[in-house]
Amino acid sequence: MSDVVSAISTPSRVADQDEGISVEELQLAARNHGLLSEAMRFDVTPIGLHYLLIHYDIPDLDPDAFALTVDGAVTTPLRLTVADLRARPRVTTRVTMECAGNGRAWFSPRPVSQPWLTDAVGTADWTGTPLGPLLREAGLAGDAVDVVFTGADHGVERGIEQDYQRSLTVDQALADEVLLAYEMNGAPLPSQHGFPLRLVVPGWYGMAHVKWLTTITVATTAFTGFQQATAYVMRQRPDEAGTPITRIAPRAQLIPPGFPDFMSRRRAMRPGACRLSGRAWSGHAPIVAVDVTTDGGATWRPATVDGTADQPRWAWRRFDCDWDAKPGSHRLAARATDADGNIQPLAPQWNRGGFANNMVQEIEVLVLDD
Amino acid sequence: MSDVVSAISTPSRVADQDEGISVEELQLAARNHGLLSEAMRFDVTPIGLHYLLIHYDIPDLDPDAFALTVDGAVTTPLRLTVADLRARPRVTTRVTMECAGNGRAWFSPRPVSQPWLTDAVGTADWTGTPLGPLLREAGLAGDAVDVVFTGADHGVERGIEQDYQRSLTVDQALADEVLLAYEMNGAPLPSQHGFPLRLVVPGWYGMAHVKWLTTITVATTAFTGFQQATAYVMRQRPDEAGTPITRIAPRAQLIPPGFPDFMSRRRAMRPGACRLSGRAWSGHAPIVAVDVTTDGGATWRPATVDGTADQPRWAWRRFDCDWDAKPGSHRLAARATDADGNIQPLAPQWNRGGFANNMVQEIEVLVLDD
Repeated sequence: MSDVVSAISTPSRVADQDEGISVEELQLAARNHGLLSEAMRFDVTPIGLHYLLIHYDIPDLDPDAFALTVDGAVTTPLRLTVADLRARPRVTTRVTMECAGNGRAWFSPRPVSQPWLTDAVGTADWTGTPLGPLLREAGLAGDAVDVVFTGADHGVERGIEQDYQRSLTVDQALADEVLLAYEMNGAPLPSQHGFPLRLVVPGWYGMAHVKWLTTITVATTAFTGFQQATAYVMRQRPDEAGTPITRIAPRAQLIPPGFPDFMSRRRAMRPGACRLSGRAWSGHAPIVAVDVTTDGGATWRPATVDGTADQPRWAWRRFDCDWDAKPGSHRLAARATDADGNIQPLAPQWNRGGFANNMVQEIEVLVLDD
Repeated sequence: MSDVVSAISTPSRVADQDEGISVEELQLAARNHGLLSEAMRFDVTPIGLHYLLIHYDIPDLDPDAFALTVDGAVTTPLRLTVADLRARPRVTTRVTMECAGNGRAWFSPRPVSQPWLTDAVGTADWTGTPLGPLLREAGLAGDAVDVVFTGADHGVERGIEQDYQRSLTVDQALADEVLLAYEMNGAPLPSQHGFPLRLVVPGWYGMAHVKWLTTITVATTAFTGFQQATAYVMRQRPDEAGTPITRIAPRAQLIPPGFPDFMSRRRAMRPGACRLSGRAWSGHAPIVAVDVTTDGGATWRPATVDGTADQPRWAWRRFDCDWDAKPGSHRLAARATDADGNIQPLAPQWNRGGFANNMVQEIEVLVLDD
């Protein structure tokens, strides 16, 4: 049967040089929207503005019939309704989430997949119960290796019919910050963000935060499912094993000043003193510096960064930088550095899957005459 | 100064035959998302799944400082806060809204603009106060011709700097169903849908429902602003006056059965008896029939249509049709007819702006072997 299913699927590929964006890529862009960049002004991204990536369809789940299963190499398999999970300790964490494919469509040649430009990001308050205590209650086997998370979303990818599945190692799964979330921004999860239950793994790219989570299976061998070992892997060539995608690389992004042209999205503004603002985040370590240029990278100066290294720990930090805008065309950009010494690159670091493109992005703005 | 602003803008154009989708079009697709087609299963589209088209940026409005101005050719100019509007008679109306550009990217050659495929639609419960009584209280001048609605969103389009503006004739504006809406689906408007106030003109394409509404101006001459006389007009050639876009042409759309391939969005399903369902709507008159084909249009049969001609009056109607799915590839489609005798065309009706493409759309589905 998998031969037949594979008829609706195509292999992964890289676009030809100068190949325009295809209708297939456009179909994905019309479904999976980015954060409108002006909406970075909100500390917490309102529902409907947070980026969204759904591999297959939003599944139609009945919350009354729903239960999470914990099984595999555990002493006591568990079955928990949403009410059971709500009766457990409750934690709310503010988390910035970014798609691993953010920036893909800026690569040349362009890997053909969801054609993200710069906006596959969002920050939400996720409420749920920590995963670690629940796994400990189930009783992890001494030889447990991976914890596999299965979502209810079902589809085909490169010929393989599957439910969406990802794993964490036991150590990663037991980290204090990992949540089973049933609320987003203080309300039940929206259907498109995983209703009634999703995994939240602060600091990691979005592919780890399994939506419509139905089953947690503890495994004594390494999980090699499609999304783990095939899809989300950094490679230069299709035949290499590559490096798995994990934590979010640092990025700073300006809220575009002025006002846009409808079609080109190019920007214009009035001259004079203004404040440039934006957001910076990293999944590896706290943001410690953001530098801003208004002359296309000829000179950089430090922005003021809100918050501290620990607060918020998993969410973006706002930055501000004053600018005296003179008439003419200007190329603006921001560049983030985290406490691990990771700094955004100035040149693209191409890879075949189009992942983790955190290259500094310029915004061109035309400052009008007085 | 408009010469300078025009530097960030380009004229309208039609793509070359076989020209791929440009990065400019992709930028718009990443901001302005469609309805995920599986989400047509909801009678009322949840926030975040309703289609969105924003010409410029979401403006940053302070609701406490906000007031709606009613001025121009009236006896008594008015200034109303949201609290003033909430104190007036309150009405909730379920309305299906569709972008006038829905289907644009299926045209060949493709008009270059927001590249909608099939999903720029959504249905919401809008709550607000009727416009007509408020205009009557202001006292329309005897020679009033048009009512002009100005939003706070500001930008450039084809070289013209503007706040988004649209008009209705006095008769259109006084229609019972026209609302000043401050709630969507029972909560304050989301910022991306016009917070704190928008116009809702049931039955009309989305361009009429001015978001972030700040001013209503009664005019004694016909309004010829950019969005009224230049942008939303049906034309074959750029130099003709053309026909203004007004009400939504009929359309029926199936909820795609089975499950998708991630990249191609092509569908597969298991064989056997199943129910095909979807939604149909028209802004001209109630939907009176939906016909369904499962053989690429060789034969059609009537679907069962929920509701009545008057209920819901302005929202889509659900339709259902049983199907015994046999292994093999099948081309499914639905076709709507309204009470005015409007019926969806089977062939595209090209126009230069790419508007109102309500051509019947096929879904291909591969039914797997048992």
